Amino acid sequence: MLVSVARIAVVAGDGIGTEVTAQARKVIEAVLPGAEYNEYDLGARLYNRTGEVLPQAVKDELAGHDAILLGAIGDPSVPPGVLERGLLLKLRFDFDQYVNLRPSRLWPGTVSPLAGIKPGEIDMVVVREGTEGLYVGAGGVLHKDTPAEIATEESLNTRYGVERVIRDAFARAQSRERRHLTLVHKTNVLTHAGGLWARTFKAVAAEFPQVTTEYQHIDAASMFMVSNPQRYDVVVTDNLFGDILTDIAAAVTGGIGMAASGSVNPERQYPSTFEPVHGSAPDIAGQGIADPAAAILSAALLLEHLGHPDEARRVSEAVAAEVASRAPGASLRTAEVGDRVAATAAA
Amino acid sequence: MLVSVARIAVVAGDGIGTEVTAQARKVIEAVLPGAEYNEYDLGARLYNRTGEVLPQAVKDELAGHDAILLGAIGDPSVPPGVLERGLLLKLRFDFDQYVNLRPSRLWPGTVSPLAGIKPGEIDMVVVREGTEGLYVGAGGVLHKDTPAEIATEESLNTRYGVERVIRDAFARAQSRERRHLTLVHKTNVLTHAGGLWARTFKAVAAEFPQVTTEYQHIDAASMFMVSNPQRYDVVVTDNLFGDILTDIAAAVTGGIGMAASGSVNPERQYPSTFEPVHGSAPDIAGQGIADPAAAILSAALLLEHLGHPDEARRVSEAVAAEVASRAPGASLRTAEVGDRVAATAAA
Ligand SMILES: CC(C)[C@H](C(=O)O)[C@@H](O)C(=O)O
Ligand SMILES: CC(C)[C@H](C(=O)O)[C@@H](O)C(=O)O
Repeated sequence: MLVSVARIAVVAGDGIGTEVTAQARKVIEAVLPGAEYNEYDLGARLYNRTGEVLPQAVKDELAGHDAILLGAIGDPSVPPGVLERGLLLKLRFDFDQYVNLRPSRLWPGTVSPLAGIKPGEIDMVVVREGTEGLYVGAGGVLHKDTPAEIATEESLNTRYGVERVIRDAFARAQSRERRHLTLVHKTNVLTHAGGLWARTFKAVAAEFPQVTTEYQHIDAASMFMVSNPQRYDVVVTDNLFGDILTDIAAAVTGGIGMAASGSVNPERQYPSTFEPVHGSAPDIAGQGIADPAAAILSAALLLEHLGHPDEARRVSEAVAAEVASRAPGASLRTAEVGDRVAATAAA
Repeated sequence: MLVSVARIAVVAGDGIGTEVTAQARKVIEAVLPGAEYNEYDLGARLYNRTGEVLPQAVKDELAGHDAILLGAIGDPSVPPGVLERGLLLKLRFDFDQYVNLRPSRLWPGTVSPLAGIKPGEIDMVVVREGTEGLYVGAGGVLHKDTPAEIATEESLNTRYGVERVIRDAFARAQSRERRHLTLVHKTNVLTHAGGLWARTFKAVAAEFPQVTTEYQHIDAASMFMVSNPQRYDVVVTDNLFGDILTDIAAAVTGGIGMAASGSVNPERQYPSTFEPVHGSAPDIAGQGIADPAAAILSAALLLEHLGHPDEARRVSEAVAAEVASRAPGASLRTAEVGDRVAATAAA
């Protein structure tokens, strides 16, 4: 009996999602022959046809995979939030993807909006908690649409959840050259949750004496992310702060065109999801001109997660070479980029 | 009997706070003779001497003023958060300073870290809610320092609180040239509070047909604040998002050196606080080299709030002229900057 090297669920999604995901898959096929792929048609089409976002039977099937390669979901025809909560966040929560990985690098050939920063100078990874905090949906509304209305949102944080993501971040910092980890929170105002994060960080730090550490408030970190992004190596933070900080990190490294992400269950008890940070870009969909770089870099994170670090490195380097070779402002063809990167990575 | 034109409480605070506040006061004296000043020694010195941050008797006295001119508080000798919560946040809450005003401009003579942006191109004001949200301190910790620990933070939002700050932001947008207002929240995830903010925004918008409006998620806004800050005119958002967004805005307009703020009770039922965004900078304190620009711009916000728009404009323009005349990298003397700005503004 043939056992596949990996079972990958492909959720290409909406808009340019299908186009960029095809390239990501092409590149994985080139460096890791023998994986099995199953395609799932989720996103705006399914929702508009059936009113469903993630049918239980589909979720059960997804659970049988090693990883999910996701393109992008979202379309103006769907009310905002429905697909995000019903698919992206549901996968993060139900598949216990507690490590939301967001690397940011200023690649040669990309231009930072920041003056005087050169490629190579920014190289960080934000480890964002993915299953707790303000993302749990706790809260409610009373006396809706009256002058007496109140609305609450509750951030829920457990020692269990905070400790495991902090430990993961320390381990990642430990394996990098600079071995530096920054905790970002808002301990001076959010004293309850901030206290838990700060105390847990201190406790776990004792296990990693080689990692230097630092603490910053989210407002200060947001400022430094603009004035001095070079200072960051690994950053660990909560779900909402991570959402904000990684978008600033993407902005200073030239936008979301190169921003990859993984929603990771490190124990591989459940499949992890890998997707570009960019959206479905309905305005340019179907023209074959979307840049698949972020999707392919997400595939590299997938390879790394599944235990193929050499293949992951070859893919990242092939994307880097591709991007570095681009003439400023030159147009590109999605499929040709995929072909070139696949060829380089396989060589 | 002589009635003073304004009763101003001066809380110079710690570190460079005393130095820059002296200049702010000097400039107010120059353009608005006849105000009455009372100095209050609050901050690290009082705390270290007495363990108190804001004695009730002092707060009662402060309440009798029209405005509070604040320098900066904070010193390494005081545990983090004590002075922030006990003084800054306490004033915002107890004096119902629900409009936290944070203008950001790229002034001639200042350099943005963003490439290709010219002075004058960024000119926005963020209206941050100041009395609700995650800043209320609601929440708690259970089973502290055990594996079972949980910590919560609750964001409390009322229609009353949200509506009044949104209306204030619309009125400010209405009085500006571009008449544009952006609501920033995270409605796709924080559905309870986000719904309240979005519905209230829509309702109040009907009263201001001349103001064009827009909605952005906080992560997207944080990115645009870097990639395209020129697009913003007035921004309204909640307490925590405003904290983060205004620091990014400060970063892209060259740092907190020019960032002024007002914690405003628009009805003037309580005194409003005006302070530079920068801290007490213990490392350069006492040398007479701190830049008082942000403190003086905060004084301009104070003048505007107390009904002296011409004086406010003259002060802002005098600061702008001072900053524009600076040779790049030249050193400055705090008191001389104050003298020059006072002379120009009074002329
Ligand atoms: C789409 C949205 C729910 C999501 C988030 O807030 O996490 C997105 O912004 C992200 O960062 O993956
Ligand atoms: C000092 C701190 C409590 C405060 C805040 O978070 O509001 C500060 O960051 C600010 O923006 O005024």
